[in-house]
Amino acid sequence: MPLPVTYADVAAAAKHLEGAAHRTPVLISTTANEMTGAQVFFKAENLQRMGAFKFRGAYNAIAKLSPEQRKRGVLAFSSGNHAQAIALSARLAGIAAVIVMPSDAPPLKLAATRGYGAEVITYDRMKEDREALAKKISDERGMTMIPPFDHPDVIAGQGTAAKELIEDAGPLDYLFVCLGGGGLTSGCAIAAHELAPNCKVIGVEPEAGNDVQQSFRKGEIVKIPVPVTIADGAQTQAPGLLTFAIIRELVSDIVTVSDPQLIEAMRFFVSRMKIVVEPTGCLAAAAVFNRLADIKGKRVGVIISGGNVDPAALGRWLA
Amino acid sequence: MPLPVTYADVAAAAKHLEGAAHRTPVLISTTANEMTGAQVFFKAENLQRMGAFKFRGAYNAIAKLSPEQRKRGVLAFSSGNHAQAIALSARLAGIAAVIVMPSDAPPLKLAATRGYGAEVITYDRMKEDREALAKKISDERGMTMIPPFDHPDVIAGQGTAAKELIEDAGPLDYLFVCLGGGGLTSGCAIAAHELAPNCKVIGVEPEAGNDVQQSFRKGEIVKIPVPVTIADGAQTQAPGLLTFAIIRELVSDIVTVSDPQLIEAMRFFVSRMKIVVEPTGCLAAAAVFNRLADIKGKRVGVIISGGNVDPAALGRWLA
Repeated sequence: MPLPVTYADVAAAAKHLEGAAHRTPVLISTTANEMTGAQVFFKAENLQRMGAFKFRGAYNAIAKLSPEQRKRGVLAFSSGNHAQAIALSARLAGIAAVIVMPSDAPPLKLAATRGYGAEVITYDRMKEDREALAKKISDERGMTMIPPFDHPDVIAGQGTAAKELIEDAGPLDYLFVCLGGGGLTSGCAIAAHELAPNCKVIGVEPEAGNDVQQSFRKGEIVKIPVPVTIADGAQTQAPGLLTFAIIRELVSDIVTVSDPQLIEAMRFFVSRMKIVVEPTGCLAAAAVFNRLADIKGKRVGVIISGGNVDPAALGRWLA
Repeated sequence: MPLPVTYADVAAAAKHLEGAAHRTPVLISTTANEMTGAQVFFKAENLQRMGAFKFRGAYNAIAKLSPEQRKRGVLAFSSGNHAQAIALSARLAGIAAVIVMPSDAPPLKLAATRGYGAEVITYDRMKEDREALAKKISDERGMTMIPPFDHPDVIAGQGTAAKELIEDAGPLDYLFVCLGGGGLTSGCAIAAHELAPNCKVIGVEPEAGNDVQQSFRKGEIVKIPVPVTIADGAQTQAPGLLTFAIIRELVSDIVTVSDPQLIEAMRFFVSRMKIVVEPTGCLAAAAVFNRLADIKGKRVGVIISGGNVDPAALGRWLA
């Protein structure tokens, strides 16, 4: 069965993103190399617009809308980076966006999403079903719903992160990717498969939320309860149909890291590399720092997926 | 009178630094542009090796030693970024380094400097004179003393930061530089004068430590008591002879910012730009965020000088 997204889609997404997304830097750290025995290249998507790789997929999906769809605008439900990515991308495209968020979402996130110009519609998490609400709004207004990961244009957009990394760092033996719903991992696997065919792609999940690892091992989608982890961007209960089809085919392994390992990585990023990385964004790095694969002497890519962490929470983790 | 450092020296330093220093990224932020009404280009020297621009000058000064001087090694007295810059540069050059530090320096800094392979000699701040001690060691061992800022090779090395910024960002109308002893400001002024002749260079000091501003206005070096400010890299009491000669000639103005303005800038960097910047490293940005010059509609360069802040202290500032 052909995969639902090809490298040509990733390359086309890269064209759409030119001049819109930042080409984020690839960072290296002698200390990280000494710690791991490998040569590590960090793709700093925390320095991407709105602070996460999510901008890539959202912007690409919006760029591919028809004129008719653009007139009616887009809709997303998310309390995380996807919300802000859609809000910002819609603003840049000059189209309307509605974001459905729980009424008890952090005020900072509600404000940030509104700050990007989106209409925020809140719902009561205890009483209302967000998907039904989103569908109702989408039906009433004719808005196009853009899902956070299980969408070909979103996956293709996320893959541009690995494309840039390999172009800038050169060939890799390993590529570690933060893994939630699988949009970033599947997109990056497609790019790596084309640009560095011998590169092993490893998805990294939080220990408590290993839905993709379980699915990967079983060969079919496994759904788990909402995981409890500080990696709030990886609290998915199951991979998507499209992302899982790609991951099965192109990913070498899925490993997990614990919350304390994420905090340790976050502290390393602040104290040694001077960058702010959210817990979810530390997944791939934590696997490398704890040498969860045979990386000695190897050229290893790491995607740092985002940096949107509440400063007060970061302060507590650093204290 | 010809200036003690020329653009040719900066260009030569750039050659020495090739492959040794990181070419740090130039970051942009839509939010920062909206806040200031300008187009701001941040040169992220916090992402430089050992976390600060100081590596540039230290490495260049060591690269220019004679074979005889290399055999005997180098010496520096500093409890800050210069210490680590000399320690790391000496290790890379394969030569001995002695760093003279106060015995009550933060254990983290003592450890980091030793970690880079330098011999650390401590002294009692209350009883011993560090310059006399350093001179004694230098005389006994024949080591070359490398001062933190008032040295042509150090100044030329620091200037490469502005050279890269202008090469990557294009011509600038303004360049704001963090100002302590003046090594970075004078070096960057030389580079800007050559590469963007119409660019106004503005040095930014802490309000409490405006020794260079006073000197600049009076036209002669003014010495002040040790200033009390969180910008610990800018607690100099007077500019150097060489740095002041260059600053007088090539810098347009010197402005100051308060400690609360530095903290505000630090929080902006963490929450919006996802980078860790030490208080001293926020000087130039704080001046821009508070629009201390007529930057509206202008192309503005900002040097972020470093990111070496104690994570616990950072945590407190963020909380």
